[in-house]
Amino acid sequence: MRGAALCVTASSTAAQEGSLRICSFSAQNYVREFLEGPLRASFPNSAFFEAALDLDTAQLAGGYDAACLFVNDLASEPVIKRLAEGGVRFLAMRCAGFDKVDVAAAAEAGIRVARVPTYSPHSVAEHAVAMLLCLNRNLHHAYLRVREGDYSLSGLVGFELRTKVVGIVGTGAIGLAACQIFRGFGSRVLAYDIREDPAAVALGVEYVSKERLLREVDIVSLHCPLLPSTYHIIDAESIATMKPGAIIVNVSRGGLVDTDAACNALESGQLGGLACDVYEHEGSLFFKDWRTCQLKEGFKVWDRKFQLLKTFPNVLISPHSAFLTSEALANIAATTVENLKAFEAGLPTLNELKAM
Amino acid sequence: MRGAALCVTASSTAAQEGSLRICSFSAQNYVREFLEGPLRASFPNSAFFEAALDLDTAQLAGGYDAACLFVNDLASEPVIKRLAEGGVRFLAMRCAGFDKVDVAAAAEAGIRVARVPTYSPHSVAEHAVAMLLCLNRNLHHAYLRVREGDYSLSGLVGFELRTKVVGIVGTGAIGLAACQIFRGFGSRVLAYDIREDPAAVALGVEYVSKERLLREVDIVSLHCPLLPSTYHIIDAESIATMKPGAIIVNVSRGGLVDTDAACNALESGQLGGLACDVYEHEGSLFFKDWRTCQLKEGFKVWDRKFQLLKTFPNVLISPHSAFLTSEALANIAATTVENLKAFEAGLPTLNELKAM
Amino acid sequence: MRGAALCVTASSTAAQEGSLRICSFSAQNYVREFLEGPLRASFPNSAFFEAALDLDTAQLAGGYDAACLFVNDLASEPVIKRLAEGGVRFLAMRCAGFDKVDVAAAAEAGIRVARVPTYSPHSVAEHAVAMLLCLNRNLHHAYLRVREGDYSLSGLVGFELRTKVVGIVGTGAIGLAACQIFRGFGSRVLAYDIREDPAAVALGVEYVSKERLLREVDIVSLHCPLLPSTYHIIDAESIATMKPGAIIVNVSRGGLVDTDAACNALESGQLGGLACDVYEHEGSLFFKDWRTCQLKEGFKVWDRKFQLLKTFPNVLISPHSAFLTSEALANIAATTVENLKAFEAGLPTLNELKAM
Amino acid sequence: MRGAALCVTASSTAAQEGSLRICSFSAQNYVREFLEGPLRASFPNSAFFEAALDLDTAQLAGGYDAACLFVNDLASEPVIKRLAEGGVRFLAMRCAGFDKVDVAAAAEAGIRVARVPTYSPHSVAEHAVAMLLCLNRNLHHAYLRVREGDYSLSGLVGFELRTKVVGIVGTGAIGLAACQIFRGFGSRVLAYDIREDPAAVALGVEYVSKERLLREVDIVSLHCPLLPSTYHIIDAESIATMKPGAIIVNVSRGGLVDTDAACNALESGQLGGLACDVYEHEGSLFFKDWRTCQLKEGFKVWDRKFQLLKTFPNVLISPHSAFLTSEALANIAATTVENLKAFEAGLPTLNELKAM
Repeated sequence: MRGAALCVTASSTAAQEGSLRICSFSAQNYVREFLEGPLRASFPNSAFFEAALDLDTAQLAGGYDAACLFVNDLASEPVIKRLAEGGVRFLAMRCAGFDKVDVAAAAEAGIRVARVPTYSPHSVAEHAVAMLLCLNRNLHHAYLRVREGDYSLSGLVGFELRTKVVGIVGTGAIGLAACQIFRGFGSRVLAYDIREDPAAVALGVEYVSKERLLREVDIVSLHCPLLPSTYHIIDAESIATMKPGAIIVNVSRGGLVDTDAACNALESGQLGGLACDVYEHEGSLFFKDWRTCQLKEGFKVWDRKFQLLKTFPNVLISPHSAFLTSEALANIAATTVENLKAFEAGLPTLNELKAM
Repeated sequence: MRGAALCVTASSTAAQEGSLRICSFSAQNYVREFLEGPLRASFPNSAFFEAALDLDTAQLAGGYDAACLFVNDLASEPVIKRLAEGGVRFLAMRCAGFDKVDVAAAAEAGIRVARVPTYSPHSVAEHAVAMLLCLNRNLHHAYLRVREGDYSLSGLVGFELRTKVVGIVGTGAIGLAACQIFRGFGSRVLAYDIREDPAAVALGVEYVSKERLLREVDIVSLHCPLLPSTYHIIDAESIATMKPGAIIVNVSRGGLVDTDAACNALESGQLGGLACDVYEHEGSLFFKDWRTCQLKEGFKVWDRKFQLLKTFPNVLISPHSAFLTSEALANIAATTVENLKAFEAGLPTLNELKAM
Repeated sequence: MRGAALCVTASSTAAQEGSLRICSFSAQNYVREFLEGPLRASFPNSAFFEAALDLDTAQLAGGYDAACLFVNDLASEPVIKRLAEGGVRFLAMRCAGFDKVDVAAAAEAGIRVARVPTYSPHSVAEHAVAMLLCLNRNLHHAYLRVREGDYSLSGLVGFELRTKVVGIVGTGAIGLAACQIFRGFGSRVLAYDIREDPAAVALGVEYVSKERLLREVDIVSLHCPLLPSTYHIIDAESIATMKPGAIIVNVSRGGLVDTDAACNALESGQLGGLACDVYEHEGSLFFKDWRTCQLKEGFKVWDRKFQLLKTFPNVLISPHSAFLTSEALANIAATTVENLKAFEAGLPTLNELKAM
Repeated sequence: MRGAALCVTASSTAAQEGSLRICSFSAQNYVREFLEGPLRASFPNSAFFEAALDLDTAQLAGGYDAACLFVNDLASEPVIKRLAEGGVRFLAMRCAGFDKVDVAAAAEAGIRVARVPTYSPHSVAEHAVAMLLCLNRNLHHAYLRVREGDYSLSGLVGFELRTKVVGIVGTGAIGLAACQIFRGFGSRVLAYDIREDPAAVALGVEYVSKERLLREVDIVSLHCPLLPSTYHIIDAESIATMKPGAIIVNVSRGGLVDTDAACNALESGQLGGLACDVYEHEGSLFFKDWRTCQLKEGFKVWDRKFQLLKTFPNVLISPHSAFLTSEALANIAATTVENLKAFEAGLPTLNELKAM
């Protein structure tokens, strides 16, 4: 009996070696590269499945003590049940988000859940600058043109960041990192936050009111959380107060920008460009390759607003990849191992999720 | 008689108003935008032709005192002759390059030629950083993916510039500007040049030998001129001494990099990426849209090496657009007007080209 | 005096050789290839300007008897005047359309205008089939995927045309050619027209009512003219009667299809695909490369409806190129020469345009 | 004991219901759509795993009697062993190819293997014509241009198929279907095969020698198998005998065309275009999305020849998708069910693979 044998082996191994058996789902090549080394160093009995977790693949976790999941692995109540039946008692999320985990069902099934609350603010700040520069210098268009054998220059004119005024909305860890980078370009930097950070001031950043920031800057880079007070902080009204042709960069949260207002302002020229790594209704769209789906599947989540947004020559969108650096992934791996060690030792961890 | 009338008008106008009649060739929309204002402010009798200068269109300059040309306008001997017959006595190049101008023939025909020797070093330095960031964060791929409805992350992993060591080869005005920007990212910066710039040292840049630079950095950014001593400064031998996976950025001159060696090293993984705004045999290719040509025209200048280079997923090429900012274009317009004023006043200018 | 000399030469040449002097505008490479041979064979004194005709370039025609124009050359009243002053007495349009020619102003200035009323119906019919096949087999997506190194199959599934029922709306010369091609694929072909063509019936085509056609076919290919009775022949109402997932091909006139209704039906899945070489508001958009324009120029003609249409994975658009074959171009050249010969001989031609 | 329980259930279910338990690997959405209905109609106990079969995922098949595999599922000896341990006794390949199945190991493990030897010749023939038309009318380029806002015509000129001579190499089922389609376009069709098919002759096809075919046709479409006698049937020598500018279509087998010779001839203009759905060294490349892999993985199978081939503006490549129609997939599903029924009934099937 294959299954039985597997389970026996699993139990005895765990007992003998004092080490957890861990399986990772959604373990594509890039995941294995950053996770396999650190994980196996502490937990030699680690397996990696390319398949995403769902009701079918849940049985793959049979005989494992813990499952390591990514943001799109489905851990709904029925999946949790199946995992529990297979012996899983811990879910190690290798991300901050846990929308697809039924934390309450997990608690009920005796499964603890921990996550990685932060990775690297610098990855996100650098991505904001990267997007702005790519959009400004039209590198995405240049790349396509060169590939097609078009080496003409018309339509590729950019500007110098050095001569521009940049406005940073939110000077937490990410915003502060952005301030430092923009200062390196020689840009003048204005900032808005409910509290001033002396480190930003030391960099030569000037804190101003939100209103003044919007009015005076050439580029707005958003680095604040999404709260009721920041929802649609960029809307028709605030865009109208900005300098004509100003550019908005949003690597924070989609809901900060009113997409309709942005499209209108792009068409009128009031907005000179938009670079965004997030979209206000990205939930059902992102992290998936819809090209390979049935058309009818794709049309279920078809979003005219987002489709239109994509067509602007002065809009650059990346697929929520601002965090995606090897440094951030290394941090994720380290915290994941730490979470698993806490579980193994029967200790609590601050990264643990509690059912509310 | 149209032609005669035109010439008479031209002469008399020039005499009456004390102002030159200037015509600009290759005046696409973007050229008009940066040039028309400044030029007309000083020289109201300015005309703009979308056509490039060649033997056919040379007659358009009939009755004008000066022609303002861009880098691809053909001012060969027969064209010069026709321009001279039409009354042109000055060529105002609105660029640094003058490969297509027969300066000797111009001198013989009594036509003076001036150019714009420098635009803006910051435009080029920022472009280098923009290319590196775009390549690193795979924004050119992300852009295409998002447009196609592919929002997956695999294959898009980048790195943090902050933790990297950057090597600047050549710390003239452009290289120095690059140093400052990279320091703003928090990168450690090594530099190589035949003479050290205290301003770079003050930024925390460490001057080292070329050998040590290549050996120790994660990113090499080239900012030196093309000289016999710098030709193929990046070749198989030097690449072999670099850290595996290092990235090269070249916004300077194509001849600095041995393309064959680069391709080999990209395939082996010794080179982790290549971002270039120039190519060693770009002369017959660049600044033209070959998509719209006859296939047989395109195959006359077909370059297998360049075609292959384009296919690497970790190569980003822009079409010699590092200089292309509105700031640089404004400088070009200002110097062009200055050159024309010197001509009008019968004064010499340092920007004048002499037949050798 | 250059201009005077030119005019004298022109007149004397014409007199001596009994041959017109003809200049062609907008003579890009592809135009020269099809036009230069035939034109020079009859009219050795032919010149080709790459520049488009406008107020600036009109003087290029000085000393020529006739100007050969394409659809986008501007022959407005002031341009006409300048052409007349330069000696032009005939405009040979090398196209059917003449929207940009002020025919009345031409008549007043003593300039006759002729055009090429038809090229080749087969070019257009073959293009319709080409678009359908490309869309069906997802070749445009496959091309992009292969180029990016994606050789997966998901999302590329097509169907066999052989097993489908095709509906031809309009069985003039183009529709009839389409019938023959589709019959070769083994498709069953239904047709609708106000009059039946026995040639179509002989091919096995079955004439039915428009209503039955829409109801029964898998593919509708439009080959009727745009008339009040055919305007929006494809609208929400008619689409609703079609088989779910049916495909529409439109290489005829943009106004035949209600774009809004098509977009809605594509999203719902009622329409399975749309291939079009025309668009109902293409007038201000087509035949121009907007990538190379100032953003603000592009936004003046920005068309949300068209932008949205482009984003559908099952929509394929070509830029009014259905006629664009070497065969059609040869026909255009032949008729153009014929028109010019009639002018030279002082004879009338059926292809001549009369001011209304 | 999860595993044990599963096996027990499996066995008892099979016994009670007289119906096999079947699991399908690599069951992406498109596979489920064509396979799930037919399979479940006969075998209600069917499961679908999105994961590909490999050593890790083989355990998913535990408790199933048969596994349904696609061309890239790995059924090497160790995988076969694991499948056998889990109770699998039949592999139903839903494709013709079985390169990744160790048939001998399967026989040894008591596992029978059957496949789907043919799908639909019409799908392949129509794909050949689709590729030719798309390449000819530059629809892949037009699609990209329109998307970028470039609606210019230069570089998009095609030809009329009607006036061309097409050469069909190989008039089996696929070649014959191609003959019929080309005849519908009005093309003259020459054919070469070791035996003449009266059905082709009845269509007006003229059989000629291979030499004469190559010499006289404008388009060569390859529909012969890959044999020692047909290997590199298109090479430098044969291309040299073709009409300058002739086009080659290859939807058959990559080895029919010498890629190096084709590239040389494309550059010289001797070859006017190449459309291919296959590539001589496609084995390690195709059916996979390399964009999502580590660069170093991609460079392991990096193929300069293929990369260069992709860069030609007059080359169109599809990823072995000529067979990929819903009709062909329906045939595959039907034969797969038939194969499984034969297995269930203990009957032999002509589609069974024997270890050699």
